[in-house]
Amino acid sequence: MSKALTIAIDAMGGDSAPAVPVNATLELLRRAPALRAILVGPPETIEPLLAHRSSSLRERVEIEPASQVVAMDEPPADALRRKRDSSMRVAINLVRDGRAGACVSAGNTGALMAIAKFVLKTLPGVDRPAIISAIPALGGHTLMLDLGANAVCNARQLCEFAVMGEVVACDLHGLKRPRIGLLNIGTEDIKGSHALKTAHQWLRTSGLEYAGFVEGTDIMSGRVDVVVTDGFTGNVALKTIEGTARMLAQVTREEIRRSMLSRVMALGAAPLFRSLAARVDPRRYNGASFVGLQGIAIKSHGGADETAFATAIDTAVLEAQKGVPTRIGQVMAEYTFPEHTE
Amino acid sequence: MSKALTIAIDAMGGDSAPAVPVNATLELLRRAPALRAILVGPPETIEPLLAHRSSSLRERVEIEPASQVVAMDEPPADALRRKRDSSMRVAINLVRDGRAGACVSAGNTGALMAIAKFVLKTLPGVDRPAIISAIPALGGHTLMLDLGANAVCNARQLCEFAVMGEVVACDLHGLKRPRIGLLNIGTEDIKGSHALKTAHQWLRTSGLEYAGFVEGTDIMSGRVDVVVTDGFTGNVALKTIEGTARMLAQVTREEIRRSMLSRVMALGAAPLFRSLAARVDPRRYNGASFVGLQGIAIKSHGGADETAFATAIDTAVLEAQKGVPTRIGQVMAEYTFPEHTE
Repeated sequence: MSKALTIAIDAMGGDSAPAVPVNATLELLRRAPALRAILVGPPETIEPLLAHRSSSLRERVEIEPASQVVAMDEPPADALRRKRDSSMRVAINLVRDGRAGACVSAGNTGALMAIAKFVLKTLPGVDRPAIISAIPALGGHTLMLDLGANAVCNARQLCEFAVMGEVVACDLHGLKRPRIGLLNIGTEDIKGSHALKTAHQWLRTSGLEYAGFVEGTDIMSGRVDVVVTDGFTGNVALKTIEGTARMLAQVTREEIRRSMLSRVMALGAAPLFRSLAARVDPRRYNGASFVGLQGIAIKSHGGADETAFATAIDTAVLEAQKGVPTRIGQVMAEYTFPEHTE
Repeated sequence: MSKALTIAIDAMGGDSAPAVPVNATLELLRRAPALRAILVGPPETIEPLLAHRSSSLRERVEIEPASQVVAMDEPPADALRRKRDSSMRVAINLVRDGRAGACVSAGNTGALMAIAKFVLKTLPGVDRPAIISAIPALGGHTLMLDLGANAVCNARQLCEFAVMGEVVACDLHGLKRPRIGLLNIGTEDIKGSHALKTAHQWLRTSGLEYAGFVEGTDIMSGRVDVVVTDGFTGNVALKTIEGTARMLAQVTREEIRRSMLSRVMALGAAPLFRSLAARVDPRRYNGASFVGLQGIAIKSHGGADETAFATAIDTAVLEAQKGVPTRIGQVMAEYTFPEHTE
């Protein structure tokens, strides 16, 4: 890169703000000497966290004042109308104004989506922006979208998601011909809503590497690289994966507690559990992107720790370096999508 | 019970028919001396599996001939129209005719649903039958419906599912006041489709123990006893749980293979893994019920082994003993559901 990249960080978003966003940013700057960051929030809250840091680190960090904070349970419309000086909004403004190449927030997802869409605007030729994230899968990971931006989707929107997913899989994850699947409740052509069937027909002749309908079992099976679905189903599937993993971890802990024998054995098996946990660590998959906008906004999980938040910043950096919004705009222009028919 | 209960078994359904359905049935009869079974399929195929069985067992088993088999990938409409002498159809006919108190099939789900609905008929006052099953959760299990019978559901249907779920939770699982949740992508009142919001309002004043909107993370968290959703979302969620568990099991096996140290340790941890596996064993949760029909039809997983198939028969026996369809009919009549508004 010719020019140093700057990332705007909403220092006030998430369950452990400002400590997690600020510390994660500083840690990442230490590892990436060409990176710069703008921390957004009340200077008097952020300043103390920068004390005792080296001057070489400090000079790559700027603080941009913002007097308001969007609450985690605040209705997005209220956040959009009434919180014009929120840390979230100001961070997104920095992207719009070109002062930052991307922004990251662990705040209220709905508000972030609404504000990012309002401030950054949708790319020409894109009907609906979507939320995309990597999900651990056999052999690596699967990208899934939409994860909740659009509860109900028509055929055109599903097809757009497929193309945007393809761009992210190629540009961000280095795949040559990502295999794309459309989430359904069966793999036969006759299954699913009118929107699904129309999108299925379009995808078959789109030139994309379309693998056809896939089912819930395929999200993590490694059968496809991109899973396309509406935001309601995608959000439920994502949270179901989270719930299943959490339940299995909890049951494991209970079983270990239940018997002394197991406890001794579990100690012995600790290396196994550690490398197992590392492979499916949700923190390695933190950072959902809003794709389809004229700028980069990354959502970190609200409960993210520093490691997880740093992963979200990594995603922001990579998207900015690869120019994902521009690439999506270019690739979308190559397609003629089905008309709205419902 | 005054009268011996008879269960009709589709001996030709599932990936390992007739061995699994027949052997599971015989094993269960051995353990339940008051139970009788009718095995449905070509006698020449079933007879050899009954050889070498004790005469006391044999005299509680009848074979009902059926010359056709519904293929696993056969379109339900074709199975309904063209396979009038299929093992699945004949098994369901036995329930309609009162010769069996319930039937179990591991065959094609869509075909079983279509044929059961056509032959047994929907209960008066029920708009749409649904598929319900228990899913392992912290502290026990959660019942979820609909798991795929109705891809799109309106408010009335969702409310009906809640009541049917409540009856199953009370009568089959012995709960007093089952907590019911409506699956959504957020817990705020403003989230979700018109159907979800209307059902949410109705459930609040229904007199049921309604816990409000729940998310995908709550399916296995033990927060509610019954999760109500449309068949598309329910089916995706169910298969996502299956996929997540399968992926975690596979990653565990890979990690064990990867290092000798882990392999030794894993041997040591075997008792832990065994009791862990027993607690979340999907075979313990096999057997989805079609609720809302004037008779009992239970769907076993197509890939079920004998243990799992026996669990499905257990469910059939329990539903027959408790008279679940009659109870659902009675309880449904106590409610006034919202009108169709979309």
